Amino acid sequence: MIPTVEWKDGIVRMLDQTKLPQETVFIDCKDYETVAQGIKELWVRGAPAIGITAAMGLALGARQIPASTFEEFVSQFEHICSIMAATRPTAVNLFWAIDRMKKKVLDNPDADIEALKIMLQKESQAMLEEDRAANRKIGLFGSVFVANDDNIITHCNAGSIATGGYGTAEGIMRAAVEAGKKIHVYVDETRPVLQGARLTAWELMEEKIPCTLITDNMAGYFMFRDMIDIAIVGADRIAKNGDVANKIGTYSLAVLCKEHGIPFYVAAPLSTIDFSIESGSHIPIEERNAREVTHVFNKIQIAPEGVPVANPAFDITPARYITAIITEKGAFHPKDIGKLADENRNLDRLRIT
Amino acid sequence: MIPTVEWKDGIVRMLDQTKLPQETVFIDCKDYETVAQGIKELWVRGAPAIGITAAMGLALGARQIPASTFEEFVSQFEHICSIMAATRPTAVNLFWAIDRMKKKVLDNPDADIEALKIMLQKESQAMLEEDRAANRKIGLFGSVFVANDDNIITHCNAGSIATGGYGTAEGIMRAAVEAGKKIHVYVDETRPVLQGARLTAWELMEEKIPCTLITDNMAGYFMFRDMIDIAIVGADRIAKNGDVANKIGTYSLAVLCKEHGIPFYVAAPLSTIDFSIESGSHIPIEERNAREVTHVFNKIQIAPEGVPVANPAFDITPARYITAIITEKGAFHPKDIGKLADENRNLDRLRIT
Repeated sequence: MIPTVEWKDGIVRMLDQTKLPQETVFIDCKDYETVAQGIKELWVRGAPAIGITAAMGLALGARQIPASTFEEFVSQFEHICSIMAATRPTAVNLFWAIDRMKKKVLDNPDADIEALKIMLQKESQAMLEEDRAANRKIGLFGSVFVANDDNIITHCNAGSIATGGYGTAEGIMRAAVEAGKKIHVYVDETRPVLQGARLTAWELMEEKIPCTLITDNMAGYFMFRDMIDIAIVGADRIAKNGDVANKIGTYSLAVLCKEHGIPFYVAAPLSTIDFSIESGSHIPIEERNAREVTHVFNKIQIAPEGVPVANPAFDITPARYITAIITEKGAFHPKDIGKLADENRNLDRLRIT
Repeated sequence: MIPTVEWKDGIVRMLDQTKLPQETVFIDCKDYETVAQGIKELWVRGAPAIGITAAMGLALGARQIPASTFEEFVSQFEHICSIMAATRPTAVNLFWAIDRMKKKVLDNPDADIEALKIMLQKESQAMLEEDRAANRKIGLFGSVFVANDDNIITHCNAGSIATGGYGTAEGIMRAAVEAGKKIHVYVDETRPVLQGARLTAWELMEEKIPCTLITDNMAGYFMFRDMIDIAIVGADRIAKNGDVANKIGTYSLAVLCKEHGIPFYVAAPLSTIDFSIESGSHIPIEERNAREVTHVFNKIQIAPEGVPVANPAFDITPARYITAIITEKGAFHPKDIGKLADENRNLDRLRIT
């Protein structure tokens, strides 16, 4: 398995996912600014992977702080946190990770500065390992919904490189295969950045899971012909009422599933749930550069010069379209997601504001 | 207005639409084989334009026939017709045009061979002019459904270059603007061949009709936000029961319209109606080369080497999703389309089998 991101002797090594599948390029980030740039420019993407990468970036940034007092350290660390927080607005795992790293600092006011720096590095490593473990559990809980011979449709990439490893939506596919089920996956290419064509198709082929690449607008065609049994996607942020923000096109796919009576599952770790907001309408939607739409790979122009473009990177799928949300704590009716915050003190603790 | 296709001194001059919008290249076809190649390789596309181009190709082919007797001429002409018919399977205008040209020959068994060749050229020219006139009427009949300040969504290209001129779906937009209405058009880029991004956006910009280019998977997002009032698309073949074959993605768009209570209009000349088939399930769907999906402009590879691909070029939108079909005879409830065959002798005459 190719690592999404790893800490290597004081360097954050990121797989440059914009070059996949043609080239497997790793970028060694020697400072937090490069990590922030990498998140912004999609070298790494996928909500859980963004969170982990940001945490490692903060650990790297902490090492760059020359402070000698705790107060100085906190002040400079918070500045680094604010730069990291400004990279991408939609995936909540980013803010969750930053909050958790901040909390680590604030919980240890008596620690030696050098000890703090080591603690932060260990915390980011723990987040990576916890995410991998969570993915395995999501896979186990989700795979029961996949029947033998099922044709699955997925959108964007919620695979191992969108997470610490193994994947959320793709983790369920892997777990179904590991449980001996035969599956076939229709992969939406996922315009404009083509995460489906470039990343999901590539990961499934590496795993030898049978798949067929389609353009996003073909989903309805295959559903109408009874060729799709189940949809599984990831998430970038889930509101307390079960509304889900995910890659643009997810909502259209969910509407198509409803029309054809196809169950629609969302796979995500608890770190993707934002218990601080009531509904999806409060989730900020990132508007990205028009050039992503008008140029393929920032090279080939496919539209007239100067054409007005809209490029919302995410959309909101209301809870009513979702059959279940699958987390490392089990599968939940989307309307029950909010209860997790009340039931689980541990979760509350993770959201400091 | 750039001509889609024209007859020029014994040459069929086609606009190479695969090069648009970057380059405006015309190809001079000196034989029917080149015309057939051009239809197959999408130099010309759009159901009405395919029909007209095929007719001109047959007129060109007729001139290449060295026959001295009517029987010899018919035999060779039918061979040329069969080659032209094998270019693309879905758009019925192709077969309608071939039938009409054949009929011209068979109706004139006593004509001199040279006179026949001239008749065929005139017939293809008449089809071009009739199509332009039909488009104008479609525009007039359709524009009443467009309100001032409407946000329209369209898929693929049903503009002037998809027809003899003026356009069907885009003809309605033009007519609405000519009637003094302010409109704005969301243009689906229309993967994989990007007719929306390359052709529709370009045509609307040339006409100074405000538009916004979006990826196909964004349609639901804008509908959910109440930013789309009406959908207008073209058609490649319409069955007797009102089911419509059109560019892949049209069906998904129609489902989204139903979910959001948005009226969904299909604009097409009568030559697009196939009175010989009962429903859309009988319309053959062209499966095109995988490379259209895996490579952009046959150049830039966007998916892993060897990935399995599906590439149906069209889908069927059942009549129940369609608010009205707008023809040069007026707007019809899709279920009333079949009646046109009975009511209009002239139409019956056009379908010889």
